Amino acid sequence: MKRYLMTPGPTPIPPEVSLALAKPIIHHRTDEFKKLFDETIKLLKSVMQTKNDVVIFSSSGSGAMEAAVSNLIGESQKAITINAGKFGERWTKLVKAFGGVPVELKYEYGDYAKAEDIQKAIEKNPDIKAVYIQASETSTATAHPIDEIGLMLKEKYPEIVFVVDGITAYGAIDVKTDRWNIDIGITGSQKALMLPPGLSIISISQKAKTIIKQNSNKYFYFDILGEIGAYGKFTPPVGLIFGLKESVSIILNEGLGNVFKRHSLLAKATREAAKAIGLKLLSKRPVDSLTAIVMPDGINSSDVIKQMKELGVEVSNGQGHLKGKIIRIAHLGYFFKPDIIVGISALEIALKQLGVEFNFGEATTKAMEIFSDE
Amino acid sequence: MKRYLMTPGPTPIPPEVSLALAKPIIHHRTDEFKKLFDETIKLLKSVMQTKNDVVIFSSSGSGAMEAAVSNLIGESQKAITINAGKFGERWTKLVKAFGGVPVELKYEYGDYAKAEDIQKAIEKNPDIKAVYIQASETSTATAHPIDEIGLMLKEKYPEIVFVVDGITAYGAIDVKTDRWNIDIGITGSQKALMLPPGLSIISISQKAKTIIKQNSNKYFYFDILGEIGAYGKFTPPVGLIFGLKESVSIILNEGLGNVFKRHSLLAKATREAAKAIGLKLLSKRPVDSLTAIVMPDGINSSDVIKQMKELGVEVSNGQGHLKGKIIRIAHLGYFFKPDIIVGISALEIALKQLGVEFNFGEATTKAMEIFSDE
Repeated sequence: MKRYLMTPGPTPIPPEVSLALAKPIIHHRTDEFKKLFDETIKLLKSVMQTKNDVVIFSSSGSGAMEAAVSNLIGESQKAITINAGKFGERWTKLVKAFGGVPVELKYEYGDYAKAEDIQKAIEKNPDIKAVYIQASETSTATAHPIDEIGLMLKEKYPEIVFVVDGITAYGAIDVKTDRWNIDIGITGSQKALMLPPGLSIISISQKAKTIIKQNSNKYFYFDILGEIGAYGKFTPPVGLIFGLKESVSIILNEGLGNVFKRHSLLAKATREAAKAIGLKLLSKRPVDSLTAIVMPDGINSSDVIKQMKELGVEVSNGQGHLKGKIIRIAHLGYFFKPDIIVGISALEIALKQLGVEFNFGEATTKAMEIFSDE
Repeated sequence: MKRYLMTPGPTPIPPEVSLALAKPIIHHRTDEFKKLFDETIKLLKSVMQTKNDVVIFSSSGSGAMEAAVSNLIGESQKAITINAGKFGERWTKLVKAFGGVPVELKYEYGDYAKAEDIQKAIEKNPDIKAVYIQASETSTATAHPIDEIGLMLKEKYPEIVFVVDGITAYGAIDVKTDRWNIDIGITGSQKALMLPPGLSIISISQKAKTIIKQNSNKYFYFDILGEIGAYGKFTPPVGLIFGLKESVSIILNEGLGNVFKRHSLLAKATREAAKAIGLKLLSKRPVDSLTAIVMPDGINSSDVIKQMKELGVEVSNGQGHLKGKIIRIAHLGYFFKPDIIVGISALEIALKQLGVEFNFGEATTKAMEIFSDE
C-alpha cells in the first residue's frame, strides 16, 4: 500500500533530502562538520528571516519550547501564555513546570488572540516578562496575528520578550522574525522543513540573550546560550543536519515568496473545497499550513480518517475535546497541487462511504477549479 | 517541484525497493550472490507463472527481444510478427535484422490480433517457425488475446515457438506463461516490476531450448542458453537484482490475483473517467496497464502533456503518427487509487486551460465514484 502522508508532522520528505540524510556520517568535532553547520545555519536564518543567532537542539520541537521557558522565566516570574489549543496549553504547563506564573489568555478552540487582549493583560500585569504564543496553533489550524502582536509589543513594551512557536509556520507561512519583533522563534524539523523528527530550532534576539544571561535558572541540556557557536554542545544529529542543509536549500531555491504563495494556494483550495460540499472550517483565522475541517453531525471523524486510510491517505484527528469532531489535513512542506486533489477526493470518498449525502465530486472539482485558474 | 510519474516506463519505485537498490554491492562470483540470484529467480518465476527457466540480461527490454529473435530465427527462416504498434513493428525489424523473413500481420494502431488471423497466416506459410507478439502493445495500450493465440498454437501447431513481449504486462495483468503455451516470455525492470531500467528478463520453454540448440545462429552477448545456470554469464547488475528481489516480494506479498485486480480497477477508473467527459479511447481492446486517450479535435496532445507537467504530472505522448493525437497514462506497478485521481484531475485541468469545453470535474468524479463503490 502506498502512503499519502497528509498529517501536520511528520510530513513527506523530498527524495533529494532523503539522499542527503543517507550521506555517510562525519565526525562532529571536525572542520568539515563546522563548515556544514555554519552554512546550514546561514541558510536557516534566511528561511527564518532573522539576523539573530539560531541554535539547534537534538530534540523534538517541544525541547525548544522548554528552552524558551526554562532559560527565561525564573521562579515566580510572570508570563502571558496564549491558550487557544493544545500547543498554547503547553506554554502554560511549561511556565508552571519551571516555577513561573502563567497569565493565561484562554480562547475557544478555533479562535485567535488579538493584540489588544494581550495589551490589556499586560496593563493589568505590568510585571509580565514574556509573551508565549503560536504563529500557527496546529491543534486548531489557526494563525494568530503575530505581526500585530509583535509590533504592538515593540512599540509599547519593548522590555517584554516575545516568544513565538513557529513549528508549523516557519517555511510555510510568512514569519518575519526580526521585523515582527520575535525575540525567540521556534521550529522543528518534521514540518515545513520536510525532514524526519529530531531537530528543534530556536532563534534568539540580543535582548533575549541579555535577559537570559541575568538569570540563574535551572537547566542543563536545553541551554540556548551554551549552544551559540558551539556546533552542538552535545553530540549534534549530523545526518539530520545534512538533510536540513538540503531542505533549506530547496526552500530558498524555490524562493521564500513562492513557497508562501504555494502554501496559500493549497490552503485556499482545501478550504474552498470543504466549503463547496457544506463542510465548516474549525478556525476563525485559518492558517495556510494545515486545515481543520468540522465533520457533519453524526459523523465521527475517526471513521472518516479510517476510510481515508483505506485509500492510503493519512490525515489527523482533532486533539482533546475535538477528537472525533474534526479532521486536520496538512499541506505544509513538500506538498503540491495534486496532493490536495488526493486529500480532498479521499475525504469525499470517505464521506460517501459513510453514507453522508452531498454533491459528490464538488469539493474536488472546486479545488481543481482553483488550480486551473492559476 | 514534486514529480508524479505516470509514464509507461519508467514507473514509480516503492521506497522499499529504493532502499534495496542502495544496498552495498556484493561480488557476483560469490555464494552470497548465487543465493540471492537463486531466490530472486524463484520468486520471479512465480510472478511470471512459469516453471520454465528464466534468465536475466543486463540490458533494456529490447535486449531480451533481440535474444528471442537472434537465438531462434536462422537465415531465411520465417516468423509471424504482429505489428499493431511501435513494439510490434520492432519484431518485424528484428526478424529482418537477423536474416529471417517476417510474415507481418499489420493492424491499425489500436486494433488487436485475432487467433484466426494467425491461424490463416500459418496455413498459407506452413514453414513458420515462430510467432512474435506483444501481450500489451505499449504504444496503443492494447492487449492482444495471447491466451487464445497461445492455446490455438498449442493445439494446432505445437512445433511453432510462441514468443510474447510482456514488458508492460507481467506483474500488471494476468499472463499465464505455462498454461497459455508461451515458449518465450519477456519483461523488463522499469515497468510493473517497479525498478529503474537496466534488466531484461526472459523465460524459455524446453521446446524453445531444444530448437535453439539445433541452431548455429550468430550472437554473443544475448545468449539465452548461455545464461541458464550461469548467475550472469557477463557481470550481472547486482544492485538491480537486490531491487528485483524486493519488488517481486512486494508483488507476491500483495498476491498476484490482488495485483491484477488492482490494475484492472485502476484501468477501469481511468477509462470510464475519460469517457465521462466525452473522450475516446484509442484501443479496441484496452490493456489494464496503461490507457491511451484520444485528444479532442484541434487539441494537440503535446500541449496537454505540457500543461499536465506544469502540475508535476508526467504522461506520455503517442508514438509515430499518433504523436500529438493521444496521451498515454500509465497505471502499472506502484500505482494506487489516489494516483489515478491525480492523473485524471491533471488531464481535466490541462484541457480546461487549453480552452476545451466540457463538464469540468466529471471525469475525476467518475473515477472517484468507481473507487468509492469498492
